[in-house]
Order: sequence, then structure tokens, then C-alpha cells
Amino acid sequence: MSDDRFTASVYLRRIARARELTGEAGLDALIVAPGPDLQYLVGSRAQTFERLTALVVPAGGDPFVVAPTMERAALRSSALADMGVEVREWVDGDDPYAIALGTTARGRLRLGFSEATPALHVVPLATAAGTPPELATGVLRRLRMQKDAAEIAALRQAADAIDRVHARVPEWLRPGRTEREVAADIAAAIVAEGHEAADFVIVGSGPNGADPHHEVSDRVIGVGETVVVDIGGPVPLGYNSDSTRTYATGDVHDDVRSAYDALEQAQRAAVAAVRPGVTAESVDAAARDVLRAAGLADRFLHRTGHGIGLSVHEEPYIVAGNELELQPGMAFSIEPGVYFAGRWGARIEDIVVVTDDGVDDLNRRPHGLTRV
Amino acid sequence: MSDDRFTASVYLRRIARARELTGEAGLDALIVAPGPDLQYLVGSRAQTFERLTALVVPAGGDPFVVAPTMERAALRSSALADMGVEVREWVDGDDPYAIALGTTARGRLRLGFSEATPALHVVPLATAAGTPPELATGVLRRLRMQKDAAEIAALRQAADAIDRVHARVPEWLRPGRTEREVAADIAAAIVAEGHEAADFVIVGSGPNGADPHHEVSDRVIGVGETVVVDIGGPVPLGYNSDSTRTYATGDVHDDVRSAYDALEQAQRAAVAAVRPGVTAESVDAAARDVLRAAGLADRFLHRTGHGIGLSVHEEPYIVAGNELELQPGMAFSIEPGVYFAGRWGARIEDIVVVTDDGVDDLNRRPHGLTRV
Repeated sequence: MSDDRFTASVYLRRIARARELTGEAGLDALIVAPGPDLQYLVGSRAQTFERLTALVVPAGGDPFVVAPTMERAALRSSALADMGVEVREWVDGDDPYAIALGTTARGRLRLGFSEATPALHVVPLATAAGTPPELATGVLRRLRMQKDAAEIAALRQAADAIDRVHARVPEWLRPGRTEREVAADIAAAIVAEGHEAADFVIVGSGPNGADPHHEVSDRVIGVGETVVVDIGGPVPLGYNSDSTRTYATGDVHDDVRSAYDALEQAQRAAVAAVRPGVTAESVDAAARDVLRAAGLADRFLHRTGHGIGLSVHEEPYIVAGNELELQPGMAFSIEPGVYFAGRWGARIEDIVVVTDDGVDDLNRRPHGLTRV
Repeated sequence: MSDDRFTASVYLRRIARARELTGEAGLDALIVAPGPDLQYLVGSRAQTFERLTALVVPAGGDPFVVAPTMERAALRSSALADMGVEVREWVDGDDPYAIALGTTARGRLRLGFSEATPALHVVPLATAAGTPPELATGVLRRLRMQKDAAEIAALRQAADAIDRVHARVPEWLRPGRTEREVAADIAAAIVAEGHEAADFVIVGSGPNGADPHHEVSDRVIGVGETVVVDIGGPVPLGYNSDSTRTYATGDVHDDVRSAYDALEQAQRAAVAAVRPGVTAESVDAAARDVLRAAGLADRFLHRTGHGIGLSVHEEPYIVAGNELELQPGMAFSIEPGVYFAGRWGARIEDIVVVTDDGVDDLNRRPHGLTRV
């Protein structure tokens, strides 16, 4: 599939920056196999596994792609066709690993592999290079973590699409239906509102909402319950949406109401804490402090957020211990939750982008417990 | 998803054999990440990427699974629940790599990774083990290449399902329709006839049939053309179908007819060459010899076949240079083709299984050029 909204110059700029960082990291070359890193650098969504397809970015030479001849047509339909990057084709019987390493310096080579590169290719390449394999994560994380304007526009498009789905959830969510029935309607709407696919649809009603990793079940939704709806997927440019709202099927207990109010404050506090120069862990702490003050510290079972882009989960992670300083262009979720095992749960999740002087909250649906 | 047709004892037998072969290969442990190898060994179709999930098979100890706590429910729904295999759970903040290597012998460890294990996990595990990573392919290929009775039954079920689809192709394939329209009907039938999904649907009409890697296009199918239809997908047990037939929309030229006759003979000769003890390359040669005698040697552009099972492409490959001796239980495609660039192409593909004294051809549709 081609990605025709980003131009070749966007990708060439990213590759040039990757090459600089490869040298700074002391690596001789990056090996980028199909996956989000390859999509980021050349716009290709190739999914080959058995036969080596990879972008090679030597620190001291021109980048090139190694690919089986049979993938030529698919590569031509990506931005690669306009980028002037050499494609070194191979056919069955050739040694694609020798082709991949051919023009980099001889001798022992330090290779940095994209995270998705399968062992099938890591092992022969590292063996041929004569060094233990390393991860390209340091290089690619720095690049992918700070979104450019085109990427932020794509994330905004995804956020708008998922907001439209949440706006329609009350059409389908009602007592007497199963979580699975509701989820099927939501999944169809995710696609109808402009996503390529419904990547995940969590509908956690009553006690199922207390499990942050519940997906969906045949449980019949009751009256006066909370229902966690956590949904998202990629838009055609490949960038993902991810947004959670919690709904109520009628009146809820006062203790649910007060815990939910604290959660809403915690989510707002964490969003408000986001600006350039603060650490990821301080944003996590901002949410956690509010819940602790409300006596709910032990009800918040997971990190506050994760980066998002071409992957649903990527750097930066908003979690205790992550001292990374936020920079303009970083995009991530802010999604505190409270979980009462066997009873109920709630979560509120927006995607936010760090701006030059603060934060832009991409999801605009109301944060309150929406009565359906 | 669970695989409830194979019992825990089937998986335990496979793991025990994997452990023996791990020791024979001089490896200290196998690391099997989500993918077809994990499905083969424990019946789990887990797809986790970011957080380590893996089966660890120490040569000198009991096998165990390392998995994030949040995957517990998914693992319990696999055969693993009945197998008595320990699951060592971890949560964010733990070191899953230390847990994976914890009970194997201390010091430098030789680890064999499943092919699908991503670099994200290969690199930290190999670093912790203090040795260059190796592939578990030798061990797992030996196991997976020889199918047991349950696997052959699943492949037969898949072959029967795709045969039913080919039987219905004449309902949809006719001049004036586009390849894409025909492919959509075929894809729906692949699912309707018992597959989980239509994994691939190639409809190559006229000159498009001359590209062995053509998939589908908006080309309108004409009169008097050949159309290559290569289709398949997994049945719910995870085993795949893959069968090609070539159709004709009316009368074809005499030279098409005579080349097709040679192709049909070549396919039949290769199937007839299959029996225990012969080499994979000799089966490839059997097809190639017939085409060479007909002056078509340079029209057959690819290997004769590939193994099939939980993966659409796996060992053994039926290709020149593969001196592997066939053994009962091996399953693979026999799919010679002839390709005339810019004009037309044809391919005939069956899945066959090596029996104790010969071969069982799982696909039963007629091999001739079917007039539609």
C-alpha cells in the first residue's frame, strides 16, 4: 500500500537524520525490516517475512533497500519510488545477507536492528557482521518520538474520527445487550468514521470494567452499571487513535460517583502537567497524586500513558522511573483509571501532543461519566 | 484463541521431542516467541510484541512460559491450561529476560530462537546469555516438517475446503468482470467454505497471469484468456490451504493449449516422483525435466513447491539444491507454472503428503484448463 499524503522529501529528511544518529550512536549501519520503523522511514507497509526485505542505513554511505525481486511492484507503489533510494534486488539462490552488508565497511560491523526484525534475519546478519546484534531503538526512538507537522495532522485526523465514534456510543450501549453486541456496532462505526480497521474495542461493563485488560465478553449489560469503552485503530496514513470514555447505564452509587470525580480530576491534572522540559514520570505523578489524595492510590493499577503514532504503543511511556524530558512534538496517551475488583472500574483516555509552550489535547469528547 | 481439537498430550509430546532435539543440537534452551512455532508447541496464538511472551524449553529442565500477567486470560484459553506447564508471570517493572533465563544453567548459555522472535527480545536475551543468538530453526524444522496424523487431517480439511471453492469459481469468473470483483466473490467463498480468513486470492488474467507474483487488479477479464486462480487460507485449527487452478474464458490459441498440456504433465510427473527417500530437489527436477523436453525450461520461473502447515510457506522447499530426503508426513505444494511475459501464464498447484510408500494428493479438482 502506498502512503501518498507524505512526500518523498519528508522521508528523505527522516533517513538523513537517522544516518546522523546512527553515526552518533557508534553503529556502522541500521537494518530496518518491515514494521512501523520501515513505514516511518520510507512509507512502505511491506510485510514480507521469509525473504529479507530491509532498509539499510550505513553511517558512512548512501541508504539502500534490499528486497526480493518479487516485491518490486509493492515497493514501487510506496514513496520509495520517488525517493531515489537504490533498491538492490535479489532472487532465490542469492545471499541477501551479503547484499545487505556488501557496501558497508569490511570487517566487524556494529549493526542496529529495528525492533520488529525477526530472528530469522537478525541471526545471519549478525553472524555475517561478526558482532553481537544491537537494537536500533535508541536511534529510531529519538526520531519517531518527536512527530513532525504531517504526523500531528494525521494523529489529529485519527482523534477526530474516534471522537465521532464516542459521540455515537449512546446509540448502541444500553442495558440488556451484551458487551459483544455493543462492540460489534462500535467496530463498524470505527471503520465507517474513517479508520482502516477497528484495532481494538474494549467494552468492560460492571465487574469487567475492573480488569484493565478485559476486552469484550457475552456478559449482558445491566442497569446502573459503569461501562469502560476503550477503542481505536489506524487511519489510512497509518497513525492510530486510542480513546477511552466511561459510560453509566442509569444512576450509580455515590461512592462510584465520588471515585469517578477524583479520576476526572486526576486525568485533568496530568494533562495540565504536560509541557516541554518536564519529565514523563512527573506527568504520571500528577495523576497519581490526585488519586492518592482521594484515597485511591491502590486503585490505579497501570502507567498513566504510552506514546502513539504508527504504533499504538511506542515511546515515550508516561510511567514512574522515566526521566525523559518531554519535547514539542511528542504524542502520548493520558489514561488514568480506577479499578475495584469484582465490582466496577473506570478510565479516561485522551491523546495529547506537547506544544512549544504546553499541550494540545486531541480528543474533545466530554470527560464526565456519560449517562446512556 | 484456543485450539480445542488437539489435546494437551499432543503438545506435551511435541515439547518433549523439542527438548531432546535441543540437547542434541548443543543448545541450552529454545526461546519460542509468538508465531507458528509457539502455536505448534502449545496451541497458543498469542500475538504479543512489546511485552515478552515466550515458551522456554531448557535442554536440561522443565519447559515453562514467560508472559505478562495481563496475558493470563488469553493463555488460559489455550491448550496450555491443561498441560501443566508452569507460567511465570511478570508485570511492568520486572525484568522478563532475567525470568526467562532464571532457572537455566548459569554462565554463558547457547539460546536457539524461533524465527519469528523479534530483535526487541532477541538482543536483550542474547546479551543476558552472553553468547551470539542462534536460530532454533534446525530443531523446530525437524519437528514441524513431519506432520502427525492430527495435522494431516487438518491439512486435508483445508484442502477439501479450498477444493469446494475452486468448484464454484465458474460461478463468478467470466469476461467483462474485473479481477478484483471475481476475487471478492472468491474471498467470501473461502470463508463460507470453512476457512477462518481468505489469506490470499490471486486472480491473474491474460498478461497478468504471466507474473507469478501478481495478486489482483482492476483489469477487465477478456474472452479467450487464461486466468490463474491461486487461493488459500487457514482453517480454524490454523492449518492452511493453498491451491491453484487455471481457467480459460473461451477458446485459447493452440500454442497455449500445447504449453498447458506440458505443464499438466510436468505437475503430474512431480507428484508421481514423491515418495520416502527421494530428495526434494529430485521432485523439482521431475517437473523441470518435462518442461525442458517441451522447450519450456525458461518459462518456469520459480521453485516447484514449499512446505505447508501452520505457515503457508515452511520447510521442506522443493527446489534445486535441497538434498533433503523426503520422509512420511512431510506436506508441501507441487506447483509448476509457465509464464509468457506480456501475454499469458498458467500454474497448477496441489498440496501433497508423503506417505509410507508414496504420496497422497490432497487436492482433488481436475487439473485441466477449465473452460468457464
